[in-house]
Amino acid sequence: MSDHLLPSWRPGPTRDRVVGFLDAIADVPVSDRVAVFDNDGTLWCERPTYAQYDFFEDRLRTAAAAQPELADRPEYRVVLDGDQHGMAELGLARVAFALAELFEGQTPEDYQRSVTEFFSRAVHRSTGRPLSTMTYQPMLELLDELRRRDVDVFIVSGGGVEFVRAVSEALYDVTPDRVVGSSIRYRYERRGDTPTLVRTAELDGPPNEGPAKVDALQRHLGRRPLLAAGNSLGDREMLELAHAASPSLALLIDHDDAEREFAYASEAGTMDDLEPITELGRREGWTIVSMRDDWSTVFTDAP
Amino acid sequence: MSDHLLPSWRPGPTRDRVVGFLDAIADVPVSDRVAVFDNDGTLWCERPTYAQYDFFEDRLRTAAAAQPELADRPEYRVVLDGDQHGMAELGLARVAFALAELFEGQTPEDYQRSVTEFFSRAVHRSTGRPLSTMTYQPMLELLDELRRRDVDVFIVSGGGVEFVRAVSEALYDVTPDRVVGSSIRYRYERRGDTPTLVRTAELDGPPNEGPAKVDALQRHLGRRPLLAAGNSLGDREMLELAHAASPSLALLIDHDDAEREFAYASEAGTMDDLEPITELGRREGWTIVSMRDDWSTVFTDAP
Repeated sequence: MSDHLLPSWRPGPTRDRVVGFLDAIADVPVSDRVAVFDNDGTLWCERPTYAQYDFFEDRLRTAAAAQPELADRPEYRVVLDGDQHGMAELGLARVAFALAELFEGQTPEDYQRSVTEFFSRAVHRSTGRPLSTMTYQPMLELLDELRRRDVDVFIVSGGGVEFVRAVSEALYDVTPDRVVGSSIRYRYERRGDTPTLVRTAELDGPPNEGPAKVDALQRHLGRRPLLAAGNSLGDREMLELAHAASPSLALLIDHDDAEREFAYASEAGTMDDLEPITELGRREGWTIVSMRDDWSTVFTDAP
Repeated sequence: MSDHLLPSWRPGPTRDRVVGFLDAIADVPVSDRVAVFDNDGTLWCERPTYAQYDFFEDRLRTAAAAQPELADRPEYRVVLDGDQHGMAELGLARVAFALAELFEGQTPEDYQRSVTEFFSRAVHRSTGRPLSTMTYQPMLELLDELRRRDVDVFIVSGGGVEFVRAVSEALYDVTPDRVVGSSIRYRYERRGDTPTLVRTAELDGPPNEGPAKVDALQRHLGRRPLLAAGNSLGDREMLELAHAASPSLALLIDHDDAEREFAYASEAGTMDDLEPITELGRREGWTIVSMRDDWSTVFTDAP
């Protein structure tokens, strides 16, 4: 029967562990069935640039066409020039905050429309495929199998929560309230007779990475996950927490497929003593997913 | 057909508006069907004391039996003595923070067990009924009718989120991730081999009242509600936001039933110019629910 399960996962020990977890769920009370997924590099491609960065760059180009003086600002200059070196010098955080200012004063609905419009036409920087098809087909199959077993599926992203929410239903069938991410602070005001929320350029709390993700699980979900999936150090605590559950599945995506996607190693450890996070994951007993070996298909077909 | 709907709501203009809203939902895309409910005074009784206060007092009595010196602390003394005047002098916030210290170091699971154990035996201070039956039957019927129409139902409480979550599934059929409230900050640590979250005594962000509730809607739900229900000034912004939707239902519970519940008016306005919030609600066009006139039954039957 499980031959028809997860058709894009190649037979082997990794798929066996995933299917074993799916089978074990039957014995768990429905209210304890919780699974959490990182987004960038776990559900969709994060190379060569984050999709959210592509969106910010797109909005900056449009804004700079109308107001050329924007290009004089160093944080915007490096983005418009694609100047990786200059960006590293300024620091990614400083650039990100400057880009967030582009959306100050927008309502959540404005912002959402702007993201969905972008996704309707954006293509991936190196493959030329529609950005909306850069999701990993094997992971979409896993999301579906989990839901078929009454597992509540959440996305816990380091990215901006509204950015992911704008596409989460269309791409992942996950409703906005089941997406957790980094948040902008809002201001409540009345515009004429209509009360609304308005974006500021300030972050609301820390970026949603590392221990902040586990804190977000408690604040937002209020339940411990049985399954966590991630691909970088920002997912470590979430993976640890899920790995301690029973039954549990801690899935670490290894980007080892230079041919079909990208080959790169996220690192863990201290500055003096770095190791690929896959090494840490093996020691911890997590399930390492080799994109190259374990997946027969990587990307979702264009609709 | 709508005769069988909401049996604990008496026929009349209030019930007609509620049923009208339920009918109108059929034309709304499923993904936009969102309803939010305050808890204290809206879904369950908040007089003479908040259920969470009863819980805190109960835990304090147990702690003070083991450590009598706790009673020397002024914030605890006033609670143990039921000294309303002393409590007002110290300030409710100071007392609440001191009580929160009782749970410092607990895991979310410890805390949750402690709340459900309390609810299994606690009785209401003035009626003597089990605390778990002090929920409003008409509101439970409304929650069910909304879910039957594929409306996503959330609780947005000023109370502690973990307190409400511990009973939300049993009392309201609302899963923990659909409860938003005031939050304590957590610390992530490993206990032996087991990673866990541990409660601190610090609040994580402002108490979830007033504009903070609307901010929480955006952070947590990411969608605007069509229906909001509340009973006090802390719900004003949430009610305004829902009232501006279409279709919309802004329900304000008026505690005007001294015989079956309590008669009291939450106030709105500035210190110099206070008015009952029902006056504000009428001007705004909200639907005022008279407990006395609109509900044939108030409390849920004991199971």
